[in-house]
Amino acid sequence: MTETVTISLDAMGGDHGPDVVVPAALGALKRNPDLRLILVGQEEPLREALARHGAQQQERLRVHPATQVVGMDEAPSHALRTKKDSSMRSSIQLVKEGEADASISAGNTGALMATARYVLKTLPGIDRPAIMSTIPTLGGYVHMLDLGANVDCTAEHLFQFAVMGSVCAEAIDGVSHPRVGLLNVGEEEIKGNDQVKRACQMLTDSPLNYVGYVEGDGVFKGMADVVVCDGFVGNVALKSSEGVAGLISHYMRAEFQRNWFTRLAGLVALPVLRSLRRRIDPRQYNGASLLGLRGIVLKSHGGADAFAFGRAIETAVLEVRKGVPSMIDQRLESLLAAKETQ
Amino acid sequence: MTETVTISLDAMGGDHGPDVVVPAALGALKRNPDLRLILVGQEEPLREALARHGAQQQERLRVHPATQVVGMDEAPSHALRTKKDSSMRSSIQLVKEGEADASISAGNTGALMATARYVLKTLPGIDRPAIMSTIPTLGGYVHMLDLGANVDCTAEHLFQFAVMGSVCAEAIDGVSHPRVGLLNVGEEEIKGNDQVKRACQMLTDSPLNYVGYVEGDGVFKGMADVVVCDGFVGNVALKSSEGVAGLISHYMRAEFQRNWFTRLAGLVALPVLRSLRRRIDPRQYNGASLLGLRGIVLKSHGGADAFAFGRAIETAVLEVRKGVPSMIDQRLESLLAAKETQ
Repeated sequence: MTETVTISLDAMGGDHGPDVVVPAALGALKRNPDLRLILVGQEEPLREALARHGAQQQERLRVHPATQVVGMDEAPSHALRTKKDSSMRSSIQLVKEGEADASISAGNTGALMATARYVLKTLPGIDRPAIMSTIPTLGGYVHMLDLGANVDCTAEHLFQFAVMGSVCAEAIDGVSHPRVGLLNVGEEEIKGNDQVKRACQMLTDSPLNYVGYVEGDGVFKGMADVVVCDGFVGNVALKSSEGVAGLISHYMRAEFQRNWFTRLAGLVALPVLRSLRRRIDPRQYNGASLLGLRGIVLKSHGGADAFAFGRAIETAVLEVRKGVPSMIDQRLESLLAAKETQ
Repeated sequence: MTETVTISLDAMGGDHGPDVVVPAALGALKRNPDLRLILVGQEEPLREALARHGAQQQERLRVHPATQVVGMDEAPSHALRTKKDSSMRSSIQLVKEGEADASISAGNTGALMATARYVLKTLPGIDRPAIMSTIPTLGGYVHMLDLGANVDCTAEHLFQFAVMGSVCAEAIDGVSHPRVGLLNVGEEEIKGNDQVKRACQMLTDSPLNYVGYVEGDGVFKGMADVVVCDGFVGNVALKSSEGVAGLISHYMRAEFQRNWFTRLAGLVALPVLRSLRRRIDPRQYNGASLLGLRGIVLKSHGGADAFAFGRAIETAVLEVRKGVPSMIDQRLESLLAAKETQ
């Protein structure tokens, strides 16, 4: 028998609000008999969305009212100051109060990070939380962090990210000693900026399974299970990758629509192209973890559909079952203790 | 009548040396009646390569001897100190002495940048040279810099890169006032690190056609004609993009080889897939410019084939005809003069 997991969902966040969150929630409840979900948001739109999907409140799916909504472009400081009853904040508050085991929001990343940090606080030994996401590679996938929470990082921050990423990969993938790499402009020891070089030294001296520098293309070749970088670099790398994928699929469509022959070829190749699209479908990897907090918070893509939001729920369930925050806490403590006795 | 352009080629650089440089040179001479090329390198291998391609020295294609070769993994400082008669350095020396109008090398980027900077020096007002390359976008292509020469950049460096990139885009593409964007983690004013925010202010106050922040995916959507970033971020973005493109083509091959039906579909779609491959062929964009020097130096990809190396020669010819370094010099001077009279 597995224990019940309760997850609170910011039902108003993202580009689509309840229209995505409600069907995603219904799907997740079907897949996970031990799951309970709390829909946090404005009661009227939520009740309407439930009705549209032929569902109603019940033991495993209840509505928790919150009157405000954080805008997608709202400044984090403004949201913190003026939106104390937002669906985003109330959802995280439920984690803080122990009513939920994790919270998911498709809202504005900056506001979500600021609110989560303010409400839940960081774990001891963690200066800054980081955003981690999963990215497909040649052999499978890689966890990458930070993806935009911290635009300037010291070597110590990068080291903490490595610890958090390693623990989380271990929990999510069930592998022990995941390979940790540092994103850099070259694989040679002399390359990189000072922060990266110092973090490299710290990781080399640590018991983590550190495999050295990984270059931008190496990330997608699966050179490591966890790739660590500062949030500026990580965000640019991730979005550039999305940009290239978009460019290639645009070209592909254009080439198959060039004339009657290419259209025919496209028709013949359609099942293959569909299967290709499924393989590189970013929705599979939706759900970035905000790591380093005293609680589990996930960020869904703002434009996520119900399938994608459902993926984020599954990741949250996994992180709850494995107890990721306390694993990070313990790992960090033992690393710091090992350092002190050296 | 157009004037003769002379370009010196480091014939020993890159993964393939003369086997790529010689056929690329022969092709370029055929295409450009006013072009002269100097093959710089070890005489014996060069003479053999010429013979293998049924060519010999002549007025438009002469060999300039250099006894040493810089290794692909050699430290720049080591190359500078111990390889004074390298093909890479001798080729740049010919530019310095006015015997050639530009130099191209497929050798080690770090050594090439260090040597070019040592031999040619930077333009007045330029603290650091930068590496600029061309990248395909939805609507055409974008020039991006810096791609790895400078891992730590101040706002002033980024501003200088913007001036150099703008001038070079104007020269190469023949557009006036190219749109210049700053690579950042968001499009909002509040996003980014201090250097980027300060560079944004400097660019806003300048007469350049500055269009604001561009995100990683925006680069490939053609949001700007020139995208400026520090070398760490630029290098990671570029290599990540290459990684994703490689990943997608790997998946595509795998999907089309899954069974007899998909193989057949692949056969039917072959002309379309070939045409797609041509469109995203990175060889078309081979030839990165080392900007900010008192002379024209281009870096070809180490693994470039003769077609790709030929593209780098064409870009060099264009930069010579437009006089890119003196254009940068003049533009920078007028920008600084305008600032002083403010």
